[in-house]
Amino acid sequence: MQALIVHSHPEPKSFNAALKDVTLQTLQGLGHGVQVSDLYAEGFDPAEKGSHYARRADPDVFAALAEQRHASKTDTLPADVRREIARLEQADLVVLQFPLWWHGPPAMLKGWLDRVFVSGGLYTSSMRYDRGYFRGKRALLSVTTGAPEEVFGPNGRGGDMERLLWPLHYSLYYMGFTVLPPFVAYGIQGHGYGNQEESQFRAHLEQIKRDWAERLAVLEQSTPLAFPGWNDWGEDGLATADRAAEAAAP
Amino acid sequence: MQALIVHSHPEPKSFNAALKDVTLQTLQGLGHGVQVSDLYAEGFDPAEKGSHYARRADPDVFAALAEQRHASKTDTLPADVRREIARLEQADLVVLQFPLWWHGPPAMLKGWLDRVFVSGGLYTSSMRYDRGYFRGKRALLSVTTGAPEEVFGPNGRGGDMERLLWPLHYSLYYMGFTVLPPFVAYGIQGHGYGNQEESQFRAHLEQIKRDWAERLAVLEQSTPLAFPGWNDWGEDGLATADRAAEAAAP
Repeated sequence: MQALIVHSHPEPKSFNAALKDVTLQTLQGLGHGVQVSDLYAEGFDPAEKGSHYARRADPDVFAALAEQRHASKTDTLPADVRREIARLEQADLVVLQFPLWWHGPPAMLKGWLDRVFVSGGLYTSSMRYDRGYFRGKRALLSVTTGAPEEVFGPNGRGGDMERLLWPLHYSLYYMGFTVLPPFVAYGIQGHGYGNQEESQFRAHLEQIKRDWAERLAVLEQSTPLAFPGWNDWGEDGLATADRAAEAAAP
Repeated sequence: MQALIVHSHPEPKSFNAALKDVTLQTLQGLGHGVQVSDLYAEGFDPAEKGSHYARRADPDVFAALAEQRHASKTDTLPADVRREIARLEQADLVVLQFPLWWHGPPAMLKGWLDRVFVSGGLYTSSMRYDRGYFRGKRALLSVTTGAPEEVFGPNGRGGDMERLLWPLHYSLYYMGFTVLPPFVAYGIQGHGYGNQEESQFRAHLEQIKRDWAERLAVLEQSTPLAFPGWNDWGEDGLATADRAAEAAAP
């Protein structure tokens, strides 16, 4: 198996970087090939904009999707986008490693989606969701949070974790990935958490690293997340069940 | 009233830019003062990282929240972050204008949250949510989508709109904002939508601009979005109702 880790943290000594290394070593130890997109270290520009496109379809007005389609067709996608797509094409498994910042992925990772998942080349109106380009490949999120697990329940102070990760999960599904349940490392803070002793905090981090390595070793046994698919939708994109309910409403 | 528009689209001739101009003109026409943060035009860097901080608390290891707290305390926040905070402090109303890209805000806007909503200066563990720094101010999203409205219902192909916007709405609420219902302009594409004639498409855009201007004129009458608050949570951050249910479970 080939794996790709997309790593989105600015600090090489961070806990996110340590989890990235655990992923790398664990998967290599299982005999898999592993590549790493270290977005910060590689200087990836997360902002989609016209200057990325050397040969614009329309040099006067920048429309992101139109330029993505044009560049896909004319093989003039930006070099960093081509590199990321090549890495994705070689991967059977994609792990996105990031800290939860403001109820979602850091801008760096969001921009990787904005720029790399190109219209035309990697999706069209008929090549999406369970008919997506990357169908057959698996993806999962490895996320860290500062706050402890308790606050991420339904109506909890941190926001329900399933709800927070849903948009990113859905983007992966849109591209055709089979999305495995996320690994969430809670209570990760740069300088220890709350009133814990430093030694307790270190032990906590070591435990999380072991949990993640154990999870990686048995990924095949995970039940993927469930999403609606083409069989559930009409031509209008509405869920069949919802349309039936709507028709039945007074 | 003073308003701030945070505009996140790379193209000055885009429909997003047109909606930004409608906001500006409508609010000015109502006698309000309006500032614009045009993130792309001003060259805002959406990636939070160590090099933004001239005087680091820890020059060796970059921990974003620790550096935000240190820079807040020592009045050494990055110049662009200080500018954005000053604009926010002057505003009674904040409008975020952006296209829905990959089930959320573009990286540019996500990075504005990552960098500008600074730990320590603008929030602490006790100054959040309904006790947040910006309480008393209102905020709302003005969003465009390429796909038509039908597909954004529950289980619809595009994803439920309420679910897609929830993380960003919750971030605004975290900062203390009263969050008004979003304005969503559906079916906006650079080159006309589907099989519509160009003239029909133009008429559609003009209608959306009028709808938005009308909505802006009666903002005071909007019922804000509802979120749980400090009265709903225990010290552990769990919702009181959920904890009670959990305790009662067998």
